[in-house]
Amino acid sequence: MAVELSCPVLQIVGFQNSGKTTLMEKLISALSQQGYRVASIKHHGHGGKPSVSPAARKDSARHQHAGAFLSGVEGAGELHLTVEKDFWSLKDLLKLYGQFSPDIILVEGYKREPFPKVALLRSKDDESLLELDNIAAVISWVPQAQPKNSSGFLIEEDDRYIPWLINYVRDWNGKQII
Amino acid sequence: MAVELSCPVLQIVGFQNSGKTTLMEKLISALSQQGYRVASIKHHGHGGKPSVSPAARKDSARHQHAGAFLSGVEGAGELHLTVEKDFWSLKDLLKLYGQFSPDIILVEGYKREPFPKVALLRSKDDESLLELDNIAAVISWVPQAQPKNSSGFLIEEDDRYIPWLINYVRDWNGKQII
Repeated sequence: MAVELSCPVLQIVGFQNSGKTTLMEKLISALSQQGYRVASIKHHGHGGKPSVSPAARKDSARHQHAGAFLSGVEGAGELHLTVEKDFWSLKDLLKLYGQFSPDIILVEGYKREPFPKVALLRSKDDESLLELDNIAAVISWVPQAQPKNSSGFLIEEDDRYIPWLINYVRDWNGKQII
Repeated sequence: MAVELSCPVLQIVGFQNSGKTTLMEKLISALSQQGYRVASIKHHGHGGKPSVSPAARKDSARHQHAGAFLSGVEGAGELHLTVEKDFWSLKDLLKLYGQFSPDIILVEGYKREPFPKVALLRSKDDESLLELDNIAAVISWVPQAQPKNSSGFLIEEDDRYIPWLINYVRDWNGKQII
């Protein structure tokens, strides 16, 4: 499907060691200083492991440091992207994630956000977590009172909480409005 | 604006050292083994430099290695995302990039793609690059014949090729169909 892109694309091509990354840096830096929002992509070729080598990731970091607000490197199907923005809300992130059609999005952190939660309690001192909104399950390192309407597990009970989670994803049915 | 997300979101919350990342790994691994496409987000909090610490990036890599096809870590407005796909075409990447409204996308590599190009020539041996489609400029380490309809610069002529590029972006007017 053809897509309309409302900005120019300019490729920098050359053989190895011709100075592509250094030139990219100069161009990114000059354009950023003029106030342009510059995005960059580095191609790492195909095949080999790791899919994207540390050296290639370093080149992509050079693009970022030169001023690219959006920089990425791709190789063998693995894309590493860095996106700078004044503020990333969880909602922004979820909207972006939604485009990749995941079956579930697991979020580590963001306590104050309203989505269903697994609360992980190390000790009795952590009980304040139980007051958070929308606790679906509690996993505790020590025996613990459960809040109503949530499932409770001990940390060693993988054999119980993993099936709980698989059922949670399998039975989930509906749309999450964010 | 409300957005409908067609998959569940589940947060893992807990205080520091409660074992959130280890739990995330277990859950991601179990769900991936069941064939679910799992995405993960790690929150790195706000403030401080670097925006996303090496430790936080390592936690996000743990999500990826556990089987998340999409994993990310965000802190202080900086998002690092890793997306695995069978094959990323340049078109896929440009469609993704377009959503972030850049003013220009600079691409390092992908010689065979049809977009306007700056060819960087280290020596006479590199002249085959001049046969590529859509050469807009040539930057050479040695004096070089130019292809028709392209601008020519020597590598040390920053003072000429940088204004050329700024004009190129400023005067660009149109839609790029990809």
